[in-house]
Parts: sequence; C-alpha cells; structure tokens
Amino acid sequence: MVQTDILIIGAGPTGLFTVFEAGLLKLKCHIIDALPQAGGQCSELYPKKPIYDIPGFPEVLAGDLVSNLMQQIAPFQPGFTLGERADSIEKLEDGTFIVTTNKGTKHQAPVVAIAGGLGSFEPRKPILDNLSKFEDNGVAYMIKDPEVYRDKKVLIAGGGDSALDWSIFLADIAKEVTLVHRRNEFRGALDSVEKVQELKDKGKINLITPAEVVGLEGKDALEAVIVRKNNNPKEDQKIIVDNFIPLFGLSPKLGPIAKWGLEIEKNAIKVDNTLDYQTNIPGIYAIGDVNTYPGKLKLILCGFHEATLMCQSAYQRIFPDKKYVMKYTTVGGVTGFDGSKKEAPKAVVKAIN
Amino acid sequence: MVQTDILIIGAGPTGLFTVFEAGLLKLKCHIIDALPQAGGQCSELYPKKPIYDIPGFPEVLAGDLVSNLMQQIAPFQPGFTLGERADSIEKLEDGTFIVTTNKGTKHQAPVVAIAGGLGSFEPRKPILDNLSKFEDNGVAYMIKDPEVYRDKKVLIAGGGDSALDWSIFLADIAKEVTLVHRRNEFRGALDSVEKVQELKDKGKINLITPAEVVGLEGKDALEAVIVRKNNNPKEDQKIIVDNFIPLFGLSPKLGPIAKWGLEIEKNAIKVDNTLDYQTNIPGIYAIGDVNTYPGKLKLILCGFHEATLMCQSAYQRIFPDKKYVMKYTTVGGVTGFDGSKKEAPKAVVKAIN
Repeated sequence: MVQTDILIIGAGPTGLFTVFEAGLLKLKCHIIDALPQAGGQCSELYPKKPIYDIPGFPEVLAGDLVSNLMQQIAPFQPGFTLGERADSIEKLEDGTFIVTTNKGTKHQAPVVAIAGGLGSFEPRKPILDNLSKFEDNGVAYMIKDPEVYRDKKVLIAGGGDSALDWSIFLADIAKEVTLVHRRNEFRGALDSVEKVQELKDKGKINLITPAEVVGLEGKDALEAVIVRKNNNPKEDQKIIVDNFIPLFGLSPKLGPIAKWGLEIEKNAIKVDNTLDYQTNIPGIYAIGDVNTYPGKLKLILCGFHEATLMCQSAYQRIFPDKKYVMKYTTVGGVTGFDGSKKEAPKAVVKAIN
Repeated sequence: MVQTDILIIGAGPTGLFTVFEAGLLKLKCHIIDALPQAGGQCSELYPKKPIYDIPGFPEVLAGDLVSNLMQQIAPFQPGFTLGERADSIEKLEDGTFIVTTNKGTKHQAPVVAIAGGLGSFEPRKPILDNLSKFEDNGVAYMIKDPEVYRDKKVLIAGGGDSALDWSIFLADIAKEVTLVHRRNEFRGALDSVEKVQELKDKGKINLITPAEVVGLEGKDALEAVIVRKNNNPKEDQKIIVDNFIPLFGLSPKLGPIAKWGLEIEKNAIKVDNTLDYQTNIPGIYAIGDVNTYPGKLKLILCGFHEATLMCQSAYQRIFPDKKYVMKYTTVGGVTGFDGSKKEAPKAVVKAIN
C-alpha cells in the first residue's frame, strides 16, 4: 500500500505543480497516471509544440514545460504510479481514502486531488476479432519501455507522429520494424517523415502502404499478423512478428472517476471555486482541466492557481490545529525533502574604508 | 487623453501579464505605474533575487521574470505612463472611466484593472526643513533617467543596494559622485559593496561615513548640502552639488486608490472571486496582491490566473453582444497588434515511397 499526504490523480502540469506547492507545506505527494510517462497531454499529444500562454515564457515547448516542472518538484521526491488508471475509491472510517488502480495497486491518503485533465487517455483500437486475447501478450497500444522490444520483430500501424517517431526509435532497438499505414501519405513533423523515408531506403524500416492489419494469429502469445495491401484480399500477406503496436491515437475519457459519486457537469467535476476547489466529497479536490465552475477556463496557468489554493485547504484538513504562515520562496528559499536547500544569496553587511 | 480598452494600474507581473491575455482577446491595454520602470516590486525591490515558485521555473531572477513578461506582451504593444501615480478616477455617463495621475495625465477606458500590488511605492524621505522646496529642483527620491545626471555633481545618501548600485552606475556618468551613509557598514550584495570600495580607492566615488545630510542650500535650485560627520557639528562640511538623491527605501501605500469608493478590507480591495475579480464598482477589477477574497494568497502565480479570468469578464463588458470562443495558443498561435504571428510548425502530409 502506497501511503502519502496528497494522492494526485493525473501527472499533467497541474498535477506536477501540486507537488511543489504541497512540498512548501511539507506535505508529501504521490501521482497516479494512466500514461506511461509524466506530463499528461503535454508529453503525450504535443511535446514538440510551443505553448505561448504560460506566464513568463514567450514560448515554451510542451515537453520542455514538463521537464522544467519535473526539475522544479524533484526536491520534494514525489512518488509515481505510471501506466495504471485510478479505478476505484473507498473512504475509510478514519477519513482517509484508498484508491485502487486497474492493475490493483492501492494508495492511501487523507487528501485526493484529481488533476485528471480531459480524463485518462484511452487508445483507439483496431477492430480485430481476437484483439483482446493478445493484449499484453504481443499487442500494446502505447510504449512504456522501449527495451521490451529489443531484438524483437515489431509491427507498428498508424500514420501520425507516434507511429513515425516510434518506428524511428525502434529501428535501432528491434530486430525488425514494419510500419503499416492505410494511406501512402503520413501526417507528422517534416523531420519525422523524412527520417522514416531515409530508414526505409536503408532497409531499416519495412514499409507497407496502403495497407491494414486484418488478422492476428498465435497460440497463446501473438505470432503473426495478416496485412492486407490495397484493400485487396488477394494481396494479403502473413508477417511473423513478436509485437503488434497499433498507434491510432488516444482519446480522453473521464472514465471510472465519473462513478466515484462526484458531482459532474459538462463532463467535468464541479468544485467550489469560492475557496479551495473541493468537490462535493470533502477531502477530494479537482483541479485543472478536469474541474468546472462559473467562468472556468481550461488553461494550464489556471490549474497552477487552483493547485496552490487547494494545497492550503489540504493542509488545514490534514493539520486542523496548525496554522500555516506562508513564507515567500524569495525570502525563505525552498527546502527539499531530499535535504537540498535553495535560497537567495544573502546580503552582506560590510564596511567600506 | 490616453484612450484604451483596459487601463491597468500597476506594472508588476500581474499587470504585465494582463496585457497578454487581453491581447489574445484583441483588447488594447495601457499601464500606469508610480515607479519609473515596469516590473513593480520585482524590478524595484529584488531584481537580482531568485523566485522559486513561478510554475515552470525551478528558479528565475525577479528581474528576468519581468524581462520575459515584457517580451511576451510586446506583440500587443501596451502603452505606459511611468513615474506617475494614479490619483483620481471619475465615471462618465457613457460608463467609461477617466483616471488622472498626480502629474495630470488623463486616461480613458471602459475597464480599469487595478494591479497595484502592495500599493504605490512612496520613498522614505529625510527630515530636512526646506526639503520640499528642492523636490524636482535638485532633490529626487528615485532615478528615472540616469542621463539627467550626466556631468553633474551628485550626492547620494543611503546604505543599501539602491545607494550602492546607483553610486556605481553614476560614477561613470556624473562629474562627481559623493556617497553619504550614517554608518561605516553598508548592507547589500557582496559584489556591489566591493565595487564601491574599488571606485572609492580609485577616487571615482567620494565616500563620507559615518555622516548625514543635515541641511540644504540654494536660491531656487539646490546648490549645496551640509554633511555632518561623526554626528559632530564641528565636523560639518558644505558640499557644492547639483543633485541630492536620498535612497532610504520605498514603502508601499495603497494611497489615493483607497479613496475611490472601493470596498477595502485589511488594506486590500475586496473582489468577487466567484467569477471575475470585479470590485464593488462594476467595470473596476482588482487583481494580484492588491485584492482580497476568502483564501487569497499573495502569490504572483495567483495574479496570473486572476488577470486571465478578469480579461474574459472585461471582454463581455466591452462587447456585451459578442461571444468569445477561446482558442488555445498551441493551436491558434498568437497574432500581435504589430502584425507579428507566432504559431506552431504545421504537420506535413507527405507520402513515403
């Protein structure tokens, strides 16, 4: 059982920054996210895209914003449960919550902060009869650890940035990479398209277009896929593979959280914006894009503010008798749980003779 | 008469970022600030100090944050009235406001956003009989334009960073720089103290300590000051100067705004935090450290959020019949009033053969 002060659901920018504000209050955080890496949409959907409305950054790549936030929160040593979706919640008699993921990992905390963005990202799946049989047994919809594919025969399907970028990445690791797309044209960063062309020309990526995977074969684990070219059954070919990775995009779904008894409005969680972004269940807060209130804007900078006010309320909930006196970081510095201390250089008092 | 859409009072981080969010809504802004430069406290009190709690910056110098914000808002070409304090406000029958500064500059706008921080910074003044006679006539409490002192004989009084830094800066510009401090010890950045020592040793700064200015002389303009050393009238010396600049620090005062009919609580302006940070006077908003509401935290990142929500409300006030559809900057880019356009590189659609 993972134990923490604030259990954060969602590792997007809002969830990450919560760790910092909680840390200033000496509260420990643990983050659950369905995606295999931190950063939420910023890492998964548009890591290379610039964001222009983060205050103080005339321009910042979404991926860089996430790296910066990871660096900012590092002194507060957050825990992570990645690649698992928060599925169920239970309130114990002592007022704490137990959150269990789809993989069965249990987390206990007196405060739960849902920073779930647009929801957990669920992969779009191809329609194939025996698909579920091979899930986690040769078929995967996202790549958590590329090393899994070392010296394997991998077939990737898809025509966007994910399919292009992973084909490029795995070309160096896997024994064989086949990329299948239903059109000849790919849609992605110019760099990536050109790199795939180059790897294809060198024989490092086996490209089949226009084509689709129409069948999966294997006794227990996946052993081969049937690829149909030109939509013509006569051109079907069987390709021996260890792994089939369809990368058809992710679509966000509020998912199991919608059944936690929280007040939902317009597919978002209603919160009390007059004070602390708490939901209708005391001790459960919702911050960032996942919440709604009058005048709500789904902007990263608003999530930062909501996270900050939420942490104050969480502190009061955890320590009802203590009064926290806010110190400015410019004055008091930042003391990490790892023993690190950052602070402004002190002024000297020195005679001039 | 300066005319604009949103008249912002206060050029601190919150006031500056307002220009960006207003700009995304195609609203023009003009900023009034009592200080001679933009940045508020960040520029005036601690430009060289690191801030650790700006989201996405593990560490940023206050002065750099201001530079970044100035760069971020540049495409929206804000106007500035600097070195003037917003003194009075008047509401016209058409619902617009006229704000007049202490120097008589008038500004008209349908929306006023008070982002006044802790208030306008008022200099601490030495107690000298005929001080007011020489104000703006040889005596100044802040330096707006260092060029004013080119080839002049300048006497600076004070023992902190401002006195040290301006003595260093003016040593290259003025004909003669005298630095007077009531102690031998100065309190400031080590660099600055050492640099003054060096300039004193080279004869570029004339240092008199421990000493105080006890008298001012001059027919119309300032002509000389009397400096008393060691608190001993027998050691009084008359120094011929063109300028006397006491730099004894600034203390913030809510000032004339307190008399504008706004609801004040704990020296801050009460706002409606349930929606748009509007004050009790429709059309006047208060954002950042100057406002108060339940759970208020005086943090820069909160000001950014408040500014953003305020701009949406301002838009509705200015264009009651239009509905604004928010576009993400990552998707829509940023189009400046100066004709500039920033946007993410587009994905290509390209065949691989």
